[in-house]
This record gives sequence, structure tokens and C-alpha cells, in this order.
Amino acid sequence: MYELIERLYPICRSITGDGVRATLEVLRTQIPLEIQEVPSGTAVFDWVVPDEWNIRDAYIRTADGRRLVEFERSNLHVMSYSVPVRARMTFADLRPHLITLPDRPDWIPYRTSYYKRDWAFCLAHTDLALFSPDEEYDVCIDASLKAGHLTYGEYYLPGETDEEFLISSHICHPSLCNDNLSGIVVAVALAQHLTDQRRRRYSYRFVFAPATIGAITWIALNEPRVGRIRHGLILACVGDRGPFTYKKSRRGVADIDRALLQVLRDRGRPYSVREFSPYGYDERQYCSPAFNLPVGLFSRTPHGEFPAYHTSADDLNFVEPTALAESREVCLSVIDLLEHDSTCVNLSPKCEPQLGKRGLGGSWTSDGDAAQREMAIRWVLNLSDGSHTLLSIAERSGLPFTLIQQAAFALSQVGLLDSHNVHYRGPREQAIGT
Amino acid sequence: MYELIERLYPICRSITGDGVRATLEVLRTQIPLEIQEVPSGTAVFDWVVPDEWNIRDAYIRTADGRRLVEFERSNLHVMSYSVPVRARMTFADLRPHLITLPDRPDWIPYRTSYYKRDWAFCLAHTDLALFSPDEEYDVCIDASLKAGHLTYGEYYLPGETDEEFLISSHICHPSLCNDNLSGIVVAVALAQHLTDQRRRRYSYRFVFAPATIGAITWIALNEPRVGRIRHGLILACVGDRGPFTYKKSRRGVADIDRALLQVLRDRGRPYSVREFSPYGYDERQYCSPAFNLPVGLFSRTPHGEFPAYHTSADDLNFVEPTALAESREVCLSVIDLLEHDSTCVNLSPKCEPQLGKRGLGGSWTSDGDAAQREMAIRWVLNLSDGSHTLLSIAERSGLPFTLIQQAAFALSQVGLLDSHNVHYRGPREQAIGT
Amino acid sequence: MYELIERLYPICRSITGDGVRATLEVLRTQIPLEIQEVPSGTAVFDWVVPDEWNIRDAYIRTADGRRLVEFERSNLHVMSYSVPVRARMTFADLRPHLITLPDRPDWIPYRTSYYKRDWAFCLAHTDLALFSPDEEYDVCIDASLKAGHLTYGEYYLPGETDEEFLISSHICHPSLCNDNLSGIVVAVALAQHLTDQRRRRYSYRFVFAPATIGAITWIALNEPRVGRIRHGLILACVGDRGPFTYKKSRRGVADIDRALLQVLRDRGRPYSVREFSPYGYDERQYCSPAFNLPVGLFSRTPHGEFPAYHTSADDLNFVEPTALAESREVCLSVIDLLEHDSTCVNLSPKCEPQLGKRGLGGSWTSDGDAAQREMAIRWVLNLSDGSHTLLSIAERSGLPFTLIQQAAFALSQVGLLDSHNVHYRGPREQAIGT
Repeated sequence: MYELIERLYPICRSITGDGVRATLEVLRTQIPLEIQEVPSGTAVFDWVVPDEWNIRDAYIRTADGRRLVEFERSNLHVMSYSVPVRARMTFADLRPHLITLPDRPDWIPYRTSYYKRDWAFCLAHTDLALFSPDEEYDVCIDASLKAGHLTYGEYYLPGETDEEFLISSHICHPSLCNDNLSGIVVAVALAQHLTDQRRRRYSYRFVFAPATIGAITWIALNEPRVGRIRHGLILACVGDRGPFTYKKSRRGVADIDRALLQVLRDRGRPYSVREFSPYGYDERQYCSPAFNLPVGLFSRTPHGEFPAYHTSADDLNFVEPTALAESREVCLSVIDLLEHDSTCVNLSPKCEPQLGKRGLGGSWTSDGDAAQREMAIRWVLNLSDGSHTLLSIAERSGLPFTLIQQAAFALSQVGLLDSHNVHYRGPREQAIGT
Repeated sequence: MYELIERLYPICRSITGDGVRATLEVLRTQIPLEIQEVPSGTAVFDWVVPDEWNIRDAYIRTADGRRLVEFERSNLHVMSYSVPVRARMTFADLRPHLITLPDRPDWIPYRTSYYKRDWAFCLAHTDLALFSPDEEYDVCIDASLKAGHLTYGEYYLPGETDEEFLISSHICHPSLCNDNLSGIVVAVALAQHLTDQRRRRYSYRFVFAPATIGAITWIALNEPRVGRIRHGLILACVGDRGPFTYKKSRRGVADIDRALLQVLRDRGRPYSVREFSPYGYDERQYCSPAFNLPVGLFSRTPHGEFPAYHTSADDLNFVEPTALAESREVCLSVIDLLEHDSTCVNLSPKCEPQLGKRGLGGSWTSDGDAAQREMAIRWVLNLSDGSHTLLSIAERSGLPFTLIQQAAFALSQVGLLDSHNVHYRGPREQAIGT
Repeated sequence: MYELIERLYPICRSITGDGVRATLEVLRTQIPLEIQEVPSGTAVFDWVVPDEWNIRDAYIRTADGRRLVEFERSNLHVMSYSVPVRARMTFADLRPHLITLPDRPDWIPYRTSYYKRDWAFCLAHTDLALFSPDEEYDVCIDASLKAGHLTYGEYYLPGETDEEFLISSHICHPSLCNDNLSGIVVAVALAQHLTDQRRRRYSYRFVFAPATIGAITWIALNEPRVGRIRHGLILACVGDRGPFTYKKSRRGVADIDRALLQVLRDRGRPYSVREFSPYGYDERQYCSPAFNLPVGLFSRTPHGEFPAYHTSADDLNFVEPTALAESREVCLSVIDLLEHDSTCVNLSPKCEPQLGKRGLGGSWTSDGDAAQREMAIRWVLNLSDGSHTLLSIAERSGLPFTLIQQAAFALSQVGLLDSHNVHYRGPREQAIGT
């Protein structure tokens, strides 16, 4: 995953343009993505697909030819969707178009102006010292903003049912690693893993689209199908060292919300879970009142809460292969939980069955200790009354979901439990992809 | 309001009698009160309207003519509903009829004996020193207790609907300011304010009646109408310096309960909210099981919890004009909230609407900061699904109700929200009464 | 109760056999128990009634005739259901059959092997020193394990309705006092008390059966009747000095659960209440998914949480007469609560009735203080709307149930309350059994 980030990092992405296309082409080397081109001017609910923006070069040059700011050194230097500029101007005229971070003087900020025609250069605050109030500067933004397309990629992986599990990542940020190359590459890794998986209860849909307008466009073009979405996750900022943070769907008690809580709790390490609010990433669209989909946001440190957020410091050093791997693991555990959650029925519900004669002494798993294993068996038997799912048994018992799942499998193997969905195949690491 | 307290303070009130009539006449100089006279002997549910009590004078005089206790110096000196007395008696005979507060030796207690024929003088504990065990005293209570009427006042202010907002204050206490001239004058101020208000969704009913028997009488005579009461507040002890205290209705989750919580929370200053209990003021009657009306009790320091309670120390110094003004403000905020609470419908519910093109940058209010304003807009859009009211949006978002209300108004102005009840007219101070 | 424990202590009990019969015969001297004999081989749900086990003698003897371990000194010395043995063997062969507690070297452990054919001696760890690795030993377990019966006792005490209150205690442990002679004798005391009681709303069923297989057998043979069980308590470990512990039924909010909470709270002393889990005593059977009966477990220190648990230290010194008496008292309070809980109807529900004229000043009880008594009256009147029981009134008011009950009785005596079930007869100590 980290290598994929390295390949994607140099590309200058925005909400439209060739950078998005180049990015999706790279992803196509990993998964068979379908790429959609939506013409500028297409009405999508309350919005209109904007003109396409492309940039070739940009710089600020002194009269004697020294380049003070160069797009080719960092694509953050130009505010995204800046209109073309080619002019000589005084520093006084230029200054309002220079954006810096006085508090983080070495970092280049990331800025956009999608819907207001404007232009600006973003630079390190210390680099302002290169400018002189008395000089004039040649300013060039060799960009185009004209009718074209909005581009997004989609990968649909059919399962045993039409019910969908949506994984969505925004792809509109230029050279920023955690936000959101991290989300993109974890989504790709999940797609690869699930492609190799023999059985899938749910159909999986991976959407790689620009934030906001891309999600809105995707929903608008797929409106009849969004009702199939049973679970969904936005992946963003999943490559840093911080603990996991899950932001619940608007529903707050959807299965995806409960599954995340369970998996994060079962890991035994610090995490935080937050209530929904209509601020953030594309959950704002998926959870808008007309759709109210069960889609949550999965992150490590949430956007806006790490200093490097939306600056040049969100670079290749900021994300870590192990952090990406952990994020992928948690997502797979959540998927595994929802794939295997089911309502079981105790076939010997009158008093406890005699476990001793069935050899359920604990050899059915190496997870947990003997007492936990015994309790898992007893909880599954006690609550398999047709009104509890395995997840709700895990919630009530306080035991890890995987232990409950394995107990259910062991009980179904000896004929004590009726469950058509407990496909237990050993610990998850071996289970998925084999 | 304080001046009105000054005018009402000297009057000797009880649950019946000319003091009540004099009080209501003073109130009539402020609002067009209808005064009801209910004959003694009238059956009101489990009770009977008692005989009317009036007092002209009372004193205790030594044999040599010195007056030790004089009704004309304080109407608290005579226990309310004392039967007439005119006798010379030994100190031993008199002593059981002298009530003092040994712990607060300078204060005169306030006592009543409405339903047990008795008489007593209340005096400062230090004044017991004026008496001699060996002397005889002339005791006079020149009172009458005979068939007459129970008197109460009512002011009905019609609104756009027949649904009523009840404001009720007890008027049976003599020279005691916080309990309950404070409640009376705040109720009058609210009545004046609402009379001047151009639109009223609710009809407002102000009841000024003696505690318990008065409220029972009013309910008994208006039984067919009490079902119209949608919200109600008892006002009592609202003039002292203490923080606000709200005692919920028996229902506990009525709109009036939620509105008080919201307004008190939004003020950002200490307050307390208590669960209903069947002890207190006339909420006992309004919340009796046959009616169970959504009526709560609004106070500053609750009755019985300030030392001056039911003593001569609850005088003109104990209440403060600023405290009365704050109490009125909170009540007006509650009324404003309930007047404007409504279920809104987002007219662009599929994904977020594009706010930028509609100029909703924040100029629609000066309340809150930019981030709060943006969140208010987003929360209103997100929850305006037909199942949330503005109050429930404020509750879930944690934002002030007024900000939510203004956001809803701003959104309805740009056509994004359908609400027939968001009559926003600027900050409340300007809104009401203009 | 303690004397009864002394009589029962020496008997060697197991899940079947003459020890159980002897125990039930002793109980029959106290209450008219019906004794059931269920043949070995009877199918009971997923189980089969096992062969009957009886033991006459057992010992380990040195070659020179010294008895190192003697069954007649403690019946814990032989693992319950040990198969017959009569052999001379080396210490190496014997050692795997010697069970000790190295951490508690002076205590003899209690062990069973009901469903796996095996044999063992349990002894104090210090007594291992009596053995020599080089010697041979004569080992004798003079036991029989063959077709016979499982024996249990039952006492049914009819009440005014067919709805049953189940009291269940396990009787399968040999010389162990807290677990569970304590539960047995408290159950007997309750049975005696209730037999003497003039009126019983519920019918009471006392079951004295071996744990697990006994409870399963009882339920299997009485399956059509278990639906009548409205409330149930398992009594176990109720004789030690620890605070009370109540483990809720699987339902969690059954009346029995609420009653225990209320009674324990009203006592004003430390206690703990735990959620249901499918581990413990016979609540596992009563609360199995097909039955899900409202049956909780009442204990002092729970099984497994006192060091003496399942060792010879759980002896006559470990249980205390006062602890037994307190346990009985709490159970009687719970029974009394459930016997008298009812939905009352305020006959004067419109406003408050006039209490003064009815002499409800507080002489109706000596419980609580005057303020509590007044509040009890007001809460009962306020909540007697047909949707609250006395228990729910106690819960909401925070007042003791007995005070609420007495207030309801006082109110019904003066005609203010309609309740066909408030049979108040003074404080409970006098009420029950008179």
C-alpha cells in the first residue's frame, strides 16, 4: 500500500482534470476499475458538474529571471482551480494572492477555490522573505478551466446477494498522503482481498471520486440503486500513527456503527467513537435526509485534528506502512463481522444441552482462555432464540465477536445450532482470501 | 415590575377576602383582568370553597395599654384565617398562641390555618422578652370569617390557535415579596409583552388565584377547557438572586420541559432542573392524575430553600429588579422557542444543497461564530426530514435554539426549507413586541 | 435454621443416592415434602437421568494397616460418583487419583465426576506428606454406580391464584454448609412461614433437587406448568457474612428483578446486583431460551468468590445464624412486596383530595419521618392513575416500598384509593404469619 502511495503522490489532482484520470489509471493496475466521465454542466441534484481544470505549469519569477515559486517543485503551490494568469505585477498587487501559514512557517498550505473564480499561490511563510516590496514579478499560472468532464472510478464486486457494502474514498487532493492517498490505497487493498475471497454475502462497491461534487454526482447517477446499500464506510486519513476514530452514521445504531464499535473494542487498544454530525467528508452526502444511508467515516486521526492536515507536511513521511496495514486489518474485521453476523437458533433450547458428551471442551479454538471459551458457548446457546444476532450476543456478553462466531460454528458442527450463515473457516487471517 | 411589587407589598392577602380583591384591582391597572367571585360553599372536586376571611385590626396590649404586637405594623403578625378574638388572658393562656422562630429571632414567621379554626399571633422571637409571665393581656383579632367568595383573576389573550399556554401565579400570600409578588409581577409583564406582540401562535391564559384552593377552583370551573393547555408554567419565587430552578411537569418530557432545559442551557449560566414530585405549588393540581397537564414550575431559589422563606425577611430588600428582569427574559425566551418551534422540511434533501451560490456565508446572523453558523445551517438541513422539530435539532446539535431558528429562517428565505412557522424577526428582544 | 444445617451437615449427598433421600427425609420433618423418584435412563430433554451412586466406605491404607484417608472422617475425601475401587497400588499409580489444594494446604477440596467414569480421593495438601513414594497402598472405594433413581423433593403451597412463585435450592452437595445447606434451610423457613400465612396471592412451589440434572429433570417432568411461574428465586450461598448479591433473571426487568432491587435498596446497606449471565446455578436451566422464566439467583457472597467455596472450609463455622436470618428476612420482604404489589386507582384524581379533613396526618404508620409520610401519600395519589403499580411508585418516588404500601392502605381505608390487593396488616414482621 505504501508503494502505491509513492506512485500516486506526485500527481496533481483536483476535483476534475487529468490528475484524476492519471490517478485512476494507476489504480487500474491494481483492480479492474470502471472509469466514468461526466460532462461539465450535468445537473446533479442541486449542483452542476463544473468546468474541468488542468494545469501545466506555474511560477513567480523576479524581473531578473529568478523563479521564487515553482509549481513543478510542489503542486500545492497553486491554489486548486486557480484561473489562468500571465502578468507582471507589483508586490503590492501580488501580495493578496500569496497564502502562507505564519504559525507553521516552513509548510506550504493547501487551498482550493472551486466555485469562485480566483487565483493564488501557496508557499512557505519563510519564503515571503524572498520577495521585495519594491520589485515587480512575472506571475504565470498556465492552467485551463473549461468544459470537460468530472471523472470517477468504480469497482463493483458481486456477492451472493444484491445487498451492497459501499467503500468510498475521495481522490481530489493533490500531493497529500494521509488525506487521502491513505484512504485510496486501503480501499484498493480491501478490493483486492475481497476479490480473492471465495464467498461474499454482500456485493461490494468501491467508489473513488472527488469529494462532495464527486459523491453527489455518483449518488445522482445511481439514485435507484443506493437503497441497496446495507453498510458503508468512508475511508480517509487512515495512514497516520494516531488511534482509530470512527464517526457514526446519522442513524447512530446501524449495523455498521455497531460492527465498528465491536471490532475496535475487541482490539483492546485506545480508540474513539463519535456521533454523527453534518460536517466532514462524503458521509454528509450519503447521510443527507433523503438517503440517510448507514455509512460511517473511518479514520485514524480525524481531518483537521493533525497539524499537518492540508499542508505540505502531510507527505510520504507522515504516513506509515504499519498504520496502513492496521487500518486494512480493522476494515477486514468489520467486513468479516458483517459477512458472518446472523441470527442463530438453538436446536436444544429447553434447558442447557449436555455439552460434555459432545466434546465441546474448548478445542474448537485457540482464542481466549478456557473460561472465555466456555462462556462463549453458553452465551451463544442462551441467546440463540431467534431474536439475537451473533453481534448482539457479542455485545451483551462482552466477549469478542470472533470468539462468539467460532462458538456458534462449533455448536452448529455438533448439531446444537441452526445457522446457514456461520461459515467459520478458522481465524480471519486465514479465512479471507483462501 | 419592582414598582408593582412595592404597590402590592402592604396589602394583607389570604386565600379569600378583600386583600385579594385589592390586589387584583391593582393588577387591573396593568392588564384587563377578568375577576371571578366564587361563593363560599361551592363544591370544587373534593373541596368546598371556604368562608371568606377579612381582618380589620389586631393587637396584643398590656393591662396598662401598651401595644406589644400590632397588625398594622405587619400583616404577618396574625396567622391567616385566625378566628376573631377579644379577651383578656393570662400569659399562660396566651403563650400557646404566640409563634416565633427561635433560630431567626428577629424575623416574624408567616403561618396559616385555613381549614382548622384557630388563632395565633406571629412575632419576632426577641419580642417575647416584652411579655411577663405574671401579667394579663388584652388580645384582639378583629376579623370576620363567614360566607362570602373566593376571588381570582384571569386574563385570556387569544392567539392564532385555540391551543393554550397557561401562566399561573398564586396570590394568597400577604407581605411576602419573593413568594409570590415576584411571580405575579413577572406574569403581568409577560402578559403585557404578549399583548403587544403582533402574532401569537398560542392563546395565552394568565391565572392569578390563591394557591391550592384557587387552582382547584379554577380547574373545576374550567374543566372542559383544560385539555387545550399545550404548555404551562407556574411562576413563583422568581425575584431573588439565586440561579434558576426548573421543576419538570409530571410527564417529564413535555415540550415545556424540553424548552426550559434548552433555554437554560443556552444561557450558559448555572441552573438546575429537577424531576417532578407531588410537592410544591399548583403544579400539584395541574399535574394531578386526571389532568396530567404539561405544566412545570419556574423559580429561582425554590420555595423552602431560602432562609427568608415564609418570614418577614422575604421583604422588598430580598427581591431585585435585575433578578425579576432576568426571570422575565427567560420566560420570554421559552415562549419564543415554543411559538417558533416547528417541523421543517428540507426542499433539497438529496445530498447537500450548494450553499455557496446562495450567499449563506453567515451574514444571516451575528450570533455565534462562523463555525457555529455553518454548523447550524448544516444541522437544520440534515435533520429537516419531517421528523425533527427545531427544538429537537437544537437538542441533537448542541447549538443554541436561536441560532437554529435563525438558520432555519435563512434557509427558508433562500427556498431551501419549507416552514410555515419560522417567523424570524431578528434577535428576540426586537422580535417580540414589535 | 442453623440447627437444621447441623442435622444435614454429616450426610453424604450427591446428585443421586441415599444421601439425597436422607436429606429429604430430614426436611420432611419440617414441611410436608412430596418426594419424587425418577428412574435412571429417563430421557429429560438433551439429558438422561444417570445411574444412581451410593457409597458405604472408602479409605487409603498403608501396607501395615494405617488408614491415611478415611471417608468416615469427611465425605469430601471421595470424589463424588467415583467408581468402585479395591486394589493395592504403588504410589506412582495412586498419585494421579489424589487431589489437593496446594494454595490452601489444610483444606480438603470437593470434586465430582458425574459423567466421566473415574475415581479420586480429595485430601489436604499437607496430608500428602503421609505418603511415601516407595510404598504400596490399599485403596478402597466401596461404592456402587448402577441403575436406580434420581430423587427430588417438592412442596406446593396453593394460593388464591394459579400463578406460581418458585423457590429452588440444589441439594446435591455433601458436607458443605454455605453451598448449599444455607439455601435449603432458608427455603424451608420460607415454606414454613408461608404455610402459616392466612392469605397468599401466589401459589408457592419449593423445589429441592440436585443441581443441573435435577433442575432439568424437574422442568422436563413439569413442562406444561412452568408457564405459570410468575416469579422465581434460586437460593444458594445465603449463610455467610458477606453482603447480599442478586443476579438478575435473563429478562433483566422482570418483577422479581425489580423487587429485589427495591428491597435491597430499602435496607440501606451495601449490596450488589448483577446482570444475568449463563453461568451459575439452576437459573441456567430456568432461563434457557425455550423458557426464559423470571427467575433470579439470590446469594450473599456468590459461588466461587469466597475462598472456602467447594472445600472443607465451607463448614459449620462458615455459616452464621444471623446471616441466615437476614437472608430469610430479605426473601420475606421480596415475597411481601410481590404479594402486595398492585395497580391502584385514585378515586379522587381531579386535583389533590383534601387530606386534612380525612385525618391522614401521619398516624397511619410509624415508619419514616413526617415529611416522608406526607410524600408517600402524595406520590401514591399522584401516580395511582391505573398505569403504575405500588412498586413503580416506590421506584419513581425513591421512597421505601413498605411506606408506599402503607400509604396506599391508609388511602384505601379513607376511600381515596381503589385497590383490591392492598392487604396491609402493619409492619411485615407482624403481617406475615398472623
